[in-house]
Amino acid sequence: MSDGAAPPSSMSELADYRHRMRHSAAHIMADIVRRLFPEAKLAIGPPTEDGFYYDFLVSRPFTPEDVAAIEAQMREVVAQGVAFQRQEVSRGEAKALFAQEPFKQEIIDGIPPGEAISIYRHGAFVDLCEGPHVTSTSEVKALKLLEVAGAYWRGDEHNPMLQRIYGTAFESQEALDEHLERLEEARRRDHRRLGRELDLFLFDPIAPASPFFLPKGAIVYNLLIQYVRGLYDRYGYQEVITPQIFSTELWKRSGHYEAYRENMYFTTVDDREYGVKPMNCPGHALMYASRLRSYRDLPVRYADFGRLHRYERSGVTHGLTRVRTFSQDDAHIFCRPDQIHQEVKSFAGMVEEAYRLFQFPKPRVALSLRPDPRVGTDAMWDRAEAALEEVLQALELTYERKPGEGAFYGPKVDFFIADALGREWQLGTVQLDFSLPERFDLEYIGDDGSPQRPVVIHRAMLGSLERFLGVLIEHYGGAFPVWLAPVQAVLIPIADRHGEYAQQVAQALKARGLRVQVDDRNERMNAKIRDAQLQKTPYMLVAGDREAAEGNAAVRLRSGENLGPRPVAEVIDLMLEAVAARR
Amino acid sequence: MSDGAAPPSSMSELADYRHRMRHSAAHIMADIVRRLFPEAKLAIGPPTEDGFYYDFLVSRPFTPEDVAAIEAQMREVVAQGVAFQRQEVSRGEAKALFAQEPFKQEIIDGIPPGEAISIYRHGAFVDLCEGPHVTSTSEVKALKLLEVAGAYWRGDEHNPMLQRIYGTAFESQEALDEHLERLEEARRRDHRRLGRELDLFLFDPIAPASPFFLPKGAIVYNLLIQYVRGLYDRYGYQEVITPQIFSTELWKRSGHYEAYRENMYFTTVDDREYGVKPMNCPGHALMYASRLRSYRDLPVRYADFGRLHRYERSGVTHGLTRVRTFSQDDAHIFCRPDQIHQEVKSFAGMVEEAYRLFQFPKPRVALSLRPDPRVGTDAMWDRAEAALEEVLQALELTYERKPGEGAFYGPKVDFFIADALGREWQLGTVQLDFSLPERFDLEYIGDDGSPQRPVVIHRAMLGSLERFLGVLIEHYGGAFPVWLAPVQAVLIPIADRHGEYAQQVAQALKARGLRVQVDDRNERMNAKIRDAQLQKTPYMLVAGDREAAEGNAAVRLRSGENLGPRPVAEVIDLMLEAVAARR
Repeated sequence: MSDGAAPPSSMSELADYRHRMRHSAAHIMADIVRRLFPEAKLAIGPPTEDGFYYDFLVSRPFTPEDVAAIEAQMREVVAQGVAFQRQEVSRGEAKALFAQEPFKQEIIDGIPPGEAISIYRHGAFVDLCEGPHVTSTSEVKALKLLEVAGAYWRGDEHNPMLQRIYGTAFESQEALDEHLERLEEARRRDHRRLGRELDLFLFDPIAPASPFFLPKGAIVYNLLIQYVRGLYDRYGYQEVITPQIFSTELWKRSGHYEAYRENMYFTTVDDREYGVKPMNCPGHALMYASRLRSYRDLPVRYADFGRLHRYERSGVTHGLTRVRTFSQDDAHIFCRPDQIHQEVKSFAGMVEEAYRLFQFPKPRVALSLRPDPRVGTDAMWDRAEAALEEVLQALELTYERKPGEGAFYGPKVDFFIADALGREWQLGTVQLDFSLPERFDLEYIGDDGSPQRPVVIHRAMLGSLERFLGVLIEHYGGAFPVWLAPVQAVLIPIADRHGEYAQQVAQALKARGLRVQVDDRNERMNAKIRDAQLQKTPYMLVAGDREAAEGNAAVRLRSGENLGPRPVAEVIDLMLEAVAARR
Repeated sequence: MSDGAAPPSSMSELADYRHRMRHSAAHIMADIVRRLFPEAKLAIGPPTEDGFYYDFLVSRPFTPEDVAAIEAQMREVVAQGVAFQRQEVSRGEAKALFAQEPFKQEIIDGIPPGEAISIYRHGAFVDLCEGPHVTSTSEVKALKLLEVAGAYWRGDEHNPMLQRIYGTAFESQEALDEHLERLEEARRRDHRRLGRELDLFLFDPIAPASPFFLPKGAIVYNLLIQYVRGLYDRYGYQEVITPQIFSTELWKRSGHYEAYRENMYFTTVDDREYGVKPMNCPGHALMYASRLRSYRDLPVRYADFGRLHRYERSGVTHGLTRVRTFSQDDAHIFCRPDQIHQEVKSFAGMVEEAYRLFQFPKPRVALSLRPDPRVGTDAMWDRAEAALEEVLQALELTYERKPGEGAFYGPKVDFFIADALGREWQLGTVQLDFSLPERFDLEYIGDDGSPQRPVVIHRAMLGSLERFLGVLIEHYGGAFPVWLAPVQAVLIPIADRHGEYAQQVAQALKARGLRVQVDDRNERMNAKIRDAQLQKTPYMLVAGDREAAEGNAAVRLRSGENLGPRPVAEVIDLMLEAVAARR
């Protein structure tokens, strides 16, 4: 593509163009940083899904003023239309060219012998780079630097801390503006930000990646559990409560010690090694095995909200959506092979019901099929895959088949939902498991009196409740539906003399199980309304002379809608109706 | 007391007599064991609160036949009226006398130099013993050997395993019979036994002293939490959810690392030591400190059902009542010093309400006062102790003052309840804490704008829910009141053809939130009724031709009472009324 060419038309061409252009923008940025901070050492500067970044070793963090100056000078280079030129060099040439760049030296040393080493130049700037790039700096049509963050060299906290400048670039100012608007919306909805603003949860480095749910967050968390329990009641699950710390003998038997040890926490008690559970399945297998089961007792469906712990590197943890400790709406179904179809169908129905309630669009569904190597016979896999596929078809779910992507222990179906920003999250999963029953020698007595092997179905609908809550906060932008709102109504007395009446109304609401607060601060009414709106409280109930005299409350919704004065009994009915309908 | 003397009249005389007599019975038992098992090595044989035991090193465990033979020969020695004789010996004489007894040698070596060493003889048997004893074997009026169990020498699992024979002795056959009856009742109510029989929970050595709650046990457990949550709502508590694994920096700051490390589990993550929480307080202190607090924001009451882990030696764990992992109805109140009185009063009211519900008698109350050393000023202690004492007096609770028995961080009140067998359990506690606020530098802004130190109140009402459930099972003998019963009604179709009607009735009950099962096994009605009674199911609803035709169910209670046929709607009302009243 030549200087000034029209942006490409097809999606893949566009993606390719953006990739090259953003990569080039990263070079332009490094060029300018080098001019403004001659002592800066360059690390790496790749394009990303939504933009680009470059990491620099500098003596002090970049200030907002630095970033503005860098951006301004980048635009000048863009305006100058400087050409990018590729050149292959020998290892010796490369080492000499980047003699002052310790990170580049490390990269060069990591390139396998015999592999080509290329550099890219634009103007006087040269970078060790595989490319590809646009032909000229002028092809970077619209750019914006976004933020600065610390980042360890190669993501390892034992390495030096670098300064990373993030930016993005688009084919037009319009596309850039749209993107920045989306970013702003994502920032507004960021659950970490809303978690603080709405007093939902906090984090503390003394327990990394382990949320502390404040009272309001705990209300929502417990309501999610209560909702799932209601479903369990209807769908025939039985809740159990199991230990968290088991001898490693259990984890050896289950296979976790071999395959999952890196993610587990271990402790030693009485000279015996114990592991903190990352999953509930082995504990449930023990409970299943604790008594004789007949074919008529199946399916057994054990649900467990037990707390799990899984080690994640500190570089990858993120708010509530990637934590080291969480609970799941986890359950294991022990069933006969002939019951798989019905169990999966029932689960898919529950998933559909729940996702609809949370106003998620129809989930994207992936069916992962037999991999190599695997356990179990081909006949088992045939039947299991067919059962899953039949259910998906019967429910008219569009799904994608993923040959070879099943777990070694069985095929699975994953449910992905898109949140209000169009980002996808894997929430639900249903996995057949032929291995666990073998490992724990699980049996039931068949109708012919002979011992049979049950199938285990692992299934979760919301997945990690912590992650689900994070997704939900962003999905709703913090404005939870009435049934989930930690505070459903704020009573706002107009003046001090209305405080008593406001308390009476609040008591009447509380007596009906509604969650309500009285804002009796010494503030003006409008300030209280604004604060309640910022807290995304569904109902603001204003009480002044007239309301007190008439037994009313003036109802405002967080949307801004003003329903005017209503009898308190009517307000209660209105709210209870919204709660009952889980709106 | 001479041979054949009348049993003593006063309680303390009786206790003293029983102590000596049981001690003598232990010697008689050792004498007989030695005659029957000449190779047996003697360890120790003390009297206990309810009887006596003796530990022996033998080549094989004692059989029931051995025990019967030992008991029979003991009776002969009793009948012979052999005198007990005390003698002081030198260390050298003692060592020589027990040359064949390695455990006695160890005991002798442990006696401080200069201390008198005594032996007791009866007939040819001699034992190293401090006494005291009765004068003659004939004073052991009524004896019974009870059971055999393994026990490590000195309770240490690294030592040899000994065989312990338990027995008891009383001043009359009548007193013995009464005691055996109590033991039998305790055995019938033993929560470990009922836990198995009623499918409430199980244990597995893969997670020692860590209960697995089966579906029925989990129902009761969750109902207890739900009940406490209802109280929290009314008493102004806010539930929070906090991490379980914290850096040891937290435990150093809280003082647990210094004072409680032996009972904690540790793990290493990213080269940093972490401790699994044994208590919730430090986490709550962090939450309190996470924002600025004003005097008007207090009290803050954080409730937490978080799972705790505390190491207990395997020798002392016991069923649900002493476990290594449990949750408490735990809360921490952060308040101003002037709020202590009201907070303790409110808590004591909640305790009274709850204990009454569970049909416990009025609790015994102990007030533990300032110890040495302690933190805080005398003025603080004066005020805190006075606050506690005033509340106890205002509530007209009889209490015992325990000078010097408070924690170093503050005075406390403990609530003990007696279960149906008269055994006492410490359940509730309320402890003032002046230390935690210092350690975590907790503050609030006083009405004069200056930073002030809040007081922390640790309080639990039921204590460990695991332990409480264990106590409750024994208290009710497994017959939970209707609101707590895991299965509230069993539908019993008389014949196969009534199965459908039974299912309809069950659905009608379920639709009203009642927990119900249909016993559609191919068994006779009487067998089903007996099984439901053994399961302590409150309502048995029998359905035959007549009931089906008339829309009735024939109601039987687990007490054996037969209410006869009742319309299903009436049965539902009856049950819902019992649930609502928490009967």
